[in-house]
Amino acid sequence: MGVFPEYADGLKDIEGFSHIILIYHFHLARPGRLTVRPYMDNEEHGVFATRAPGRPNPIGLSVVRLLEVRRRRLTVENIDVLDGTPLLDIKPYVPEFDVHRVERIGWLEKNVHKLPEARDDGRFTR
Amino acid sequence: MGVFPEYADGLKDIEGFSHIILIYHFHLARPGRLTVRPYMDNEEHGVFATRAPGRPNPIGLSVVRLLEVRRRRLTVENIDVLDGTPLLDIKPYVPEFDVHRVERIGWLEKNVHKLPEARDDGRFTR
Repeated sequence: MGVFPEYADGLKDIEGFSHIILIYHFHLARPGRLTVRPYMDNEEHGVFATRAPGRPNPIGLSVVRLLEVRRRRLTVENIDVLDGTPLLDIKPYVPEFDVHRVERIGWLEKNVHKLPEARDDGRFTR
Repeated sequence: MGVFPEYADGLKDIEGFSHIILIYHFHLARPGRLTVRPYMDNEEHGVFATRAPGRPNPIGLSVVRLLEVRRRRLTVENIDVLDGTPLLDIKPYVPEFDVHRVERIGWLEKNVHKLPEARDDGRFTR
């Protein structure tokens, strides 16, 4: 993925970070209802308690490992978005801001084992 | 902080999560240059390698501890945004997606000790 040529200078020094946060527009998401039944569960949950793409502001977020930067092109690991998804922002992933030890993950608690197996060896398992 | 009444149903079950991701609009950020000198450093870095608010798409992101939910009002811990900042989205913070063990944090490596001390006891220290 990449940024438009006019934003290439904004990538300076990003190669120093092993992980980055991508923020993108779920451009093909249809506006959905405010409660949704996630694919992993049989019950309805508020859309803000899920990561479903059809949300009031269809903004997506992924933390990915940054493999390579060539000018304005980034190669990242395991990004799970549709081709052509518009990238809104890139931020460095900083443990002091972004890593928290959670006590509760709500309805996901009993479903988290259904998540696709993490292929990123650096990812914590709970 | 809270959501507009018409989105209140979207918060169903969010109280089950100890941490949430807030995505907001840096509504007072002035469009900035593509390279910036962060307050912690003396060198210029690409804006995408920083968390500076003046970015091509002025979108901010914070992970916060969720303390209480009352109807459409959320009480969270230690949020560091200006009063009146428009909230764009709320997502559950899920370790399987959001927690990664980083190897490198680029220019922040030598500056990270200048970050405000974490008051969230649950936060990892590196």
